[in-house]
Amino acid sequence: MTRIRMTVEYDGSRYHGFQIQHNANTVQAELENGIKRLTGDQVSIICAGRTDSGVHALGQVIAFDTQTSIPGDKWQFALNSFLPPDIQIIESNECHPHFHPRFDALSKTYHYIIYRQNKGRIFYRNYALHNTDSLDVPAMQTACRLLEGRHNFKSFCASGSSVKTFERSVYGCNLVEEKAFLRLEIKADGFLYNMVRIIMGTLLEIGRGNYQPETIEEIITAQDRSYAGPTVPPQGLYLVKVEY
Amino acid sequence: MTRIRMTVEYDGSRYHGFQIQHNANTVQAELENGIKRLTGDQVSIICAGRTDSGVHALGQVIAFDTQTSIPGDKWQFALNSFLPPDIQIIESNECHPHFHPRFDALSKTYHYIIYRQNKGRIFYRNYALHNTDSLDVPAMQTACRLLEGRHNFKSFCASGSSVKTFERSVYGCNLVEEKAFLRLEIKADGFLYNMVRIIMGTLLEIGRGNYQPETIEEIITAQDRSYAGPTVPPQGLYLVKVEY
Repeated sequence: MTRIRMTVEYDGSRYHGFQIQHNANTVQAELENGIKRLTGDQVSIICAGRTDSGVHALGQVIAFDTQTSIPGDKWQFALNSFLPPDIQIIESNECHPHFHPRFDALSKTYHYIIYRQNKGRIFYRNYALHNTDSLDVPAMQTACRLLEGRHNFKSFCASGSSVKTFERSVYGCNLVEEKAFLRLEIKADGFLYNMVRIIMGTLLEIGRGNYQPETIEEIITAQDRSYAGPTVPPQGLYLVKVEY
Repeated sequence: MTRIRMTVEYDGSRYHGFQIQHNANTVQAELENGIKRLTGDQVSIICAGRTDSGVHALGQVIAFDTQTSIPGDKWQFALNSFLPPDIQIIESNECHPHFHPRFDALSKTYHYIIYRQNKGRIFYRNYALHNTDSLDVPAMQTACRLLEGRHNFKSFCASGSSVKTFERSVYGCNLVEEKAFLRLEIKADGFLYNMVRIIMGTLLEIGRGNYQPETIEEIITAQDRSYAGPTVPPQGLYLVKVEY
């Protein structure tokens, strides 16, 4: 038995998220079906981050065990022809038999993209949030600075989440303006449920002048979801990188 | 009876081209259905350029006659809610009752986009040609210069086309490199069938070193489709602008 680790890109538009579900098209189901068609084996895939419906990945990491003799680095090419064009493996190798994509991750990086122009917006309907509000980007960038560091992010977690601790370390939080796009780049040791989408919704409130940047500190201190801004939609979110 | 002129954006991925066809999903059918749902009237739309299956538009121009009293500039907002999210009106107004989107056009501009990187390529599968060949971009740009001007473009026209004349004036032909993208921008008084896609295919042959840039002159002189390069696929092609 060998454990294979792969890096996967997918366009989440057509999928009900990563994790396998009854009667729903999911990324995990497509990957496991592809592996079954390639090898005949039914495997169980573990991923680094279970992305929601409509969320994309440029660097999802997965692992599974196999008895097949395909060399680790050949899996990429062998499997891609058994996958749909919106899910593709970009790297594969044999890994330590105890490697776990989620528990072993040191950090994850997510991006959230906003498209701020009317012209051409239909092309980004599945790939960005469309927002043409006039935004105070420097104020949003000031708020990003206040999110960095180790904090209790309970206010930025969807209510009902059953995690043990709401403490996370945000290693970097940057808002980059590039032509008609605004891109939030956030790297942390872990993320709470909907954390990036609630942070983005809160930054937009700051950009519109509804909150001052310093309000971030009050929101963190409150440890109450109702203090933060709304959850923005999933289509602008990308799991970009997982580091080990 | 008033004639309405509209500028339309569409993502051609899901459509069998612009023009109405039996048992096929087309942009024209969606527009005419939307107008019927909005007004109750069955209209016949004329467009500036009949795009093929998979081809996109950022500035297609259409016109139709209506007895409805909706003011010209209100059509945009009224109709958009009756259209799918991948077809949207970006401008509308009442026009001269004899305005014809195709015959009255002075020039059209098309873009063709190539994505030259492996990372992220799945996101461009419907929006660009994926090509990672090492290309001599300056040689391709030299060839662009030779395409400009009034020429007989029969060598760059799909065979079997039944047009009266193959003479066209190319007002501008530029190849722009921008990060991982290569974009051909071409403006002419008119285009032959598949002309942009055959020009792009020929430029790629020049970029690979298979033809010299000066070969363009021989291809034009030959007036024979077999002298030019292959027809590249439709998904990289955009009808960007029509001028009157």
